[in-house]
Amino acid sequence: MRLYLYPGACSLADHIALIEAGLPYDLMPIDHAKQTQDGRDYLTVNPRGYVPALEVEDGTILTENLVILAYIADRSGALLPAGEFGRWRALEALSYMATTIHGNLGPFFKKAPDTEKDAARKALAKGFAVLDEQMGVQPFLLGRTMSIADPYLFWTVLATSRFDIAVPERLQAFFDRMSQEPSVLRALAEEGLSPSGR
Amino acid sequence: MRLYLYPGACSLADHIALIEAGLPYDLMPIDHAKQTQDGRDYLTVNPRGYVPALEVEDGTILTENLVILAYIADRSGALLPAGEFGRWRALEALSYMATTIHGNLGPFFKKAPDTEKDAARKALAKGFAVLDEQMGVQPFLLGRTMSIADPYLFWTVLATSRFDIAVPERLQAFFDRMSQEPSVLRALAEEGLSPSGR
Ligand SMILES: N[C@@H](CCC(=O)N[C@@H](CS)C(=O)NCC(=O)O)C(=O)O
Ligand SMILES: N[C@@H](CCC(=O)N[C@@H](CS)C(=O)NCC(=O)O)C(=O)O
Repeated sequence: MRLYLYPGACSLADHIALIEAGLPYDLMPIDHAKQTQDGRDYLTVNPRGYVPALEVEDGTILTENLVILAYIADRSGALLPAGEFGRWRALEALSYMATTIHGNLGPFFKKAPDTEKDAARKALAKGFAVLDEQMGVQPFLLGRTMSIADPYLFWTVLATSRFDIAVPERLQAFFDRMSQEPSVLRALAEEGLSPSGR
Repeated sequence: MRLYLYPGACSLADHIALIEAGLPYDLMPIDHAKQTQDGRDYLTVNPRGYVPALEVEDGTILTENLVILAYIADRSGALLPAGEFGRWRALEALSYMATTIHGNLGPFFKKAPDTEKDAARKALAKGFAVLDEQMGVQPFLLGRTMSIADPYLFWTVLATSRFDIAVPERLQAFFDRMSQEPSVLRALAEEGLSPSGR
């Protein structure tokens, strides 16, 4: 499988998940002119222009972070919380992060007016508080083992740290723990990032 | 199963999907003080405060629109496009709508500055153009039969029509066709809305 990514972008979550799941993969970085490293127009891969995209063995392209993460769990049988509703709980956390958290990071990635950033900062504080509460004393968001929700949560905290947005204590501790995971260290190194994710 | 909703909110998508899937359900409306019709605090059902929420037979609560729609497809074996990747394509469309479309409707639901609304209007125009292209000459977003993506797409166009946001021609025609579906007419009537969704 081939993962299309920008170094340090939300595609990092899928990269970490591929490593954790033990699936074979290679990486195809994109530049900010949307050219792939092997010289193709990325819009022919994903007309929506976003990373991540995952190319599977038969050439099928999957897009949308939560879809790729769910597909990785499905393919590997790994990275899902236990229980009858495990995969729904994982998808629920991913959907919440994609909409309420990632959605409110938008204004910081572009030149947005301060009023917009302030509103986003408030929404992020509320969203992170919900996730902090959900994590509680567990090592991972959905329990004792890593699920597909965790690499995405790790990335949201990483992105947030670039914009001076406060993160609650238990999420920060989770971030610090995740930063020590061999899968995370390997993914950061493969994307040419320092262990702090910069 | 019990669907928690505000009349006319994005929970309408799940309501339509439940009818199309032929699953038994009842409806539990919430008011804007977040009280359920039977007098409970909705935050005890979904601490995140959003609709939709779906209560399944054993009392488990599922939240997040795309999760509930995917669960309805899974439970019924209906409303998915054909093919090996059918369910991933449906999830992909739902994720795109939840983030790029629904995410940019936010500023119109609250008192947001005009600059923010203008940025959202541009993002919506781009997002709807992508979906219009994807629909092409098909009757439904992902092909010849209705999938879980369609009730959500129907709702986004409905919501958009309240804010004077232009929608491309093929999506408008899709909306007009969906408005004639018995499931849609029944869902609107059960939510106390007129056939135009107001
Ligand atoms: N809804 C998409 C959003 C993905 C997204 O926002 N990707 C960012 C990077 S984190 C991106 O590619 N932005 C466009 C760009 O930088 O050109 C998903 O969940 O995958
Ligand atoms: N991420 C959530 C968002 C759901 C959402 O935005 N729901 C709206 C209605 S369309 C809502 O309940 N807003 C809060 C409120 O009106 O109090 C999902 O995809 O289900």
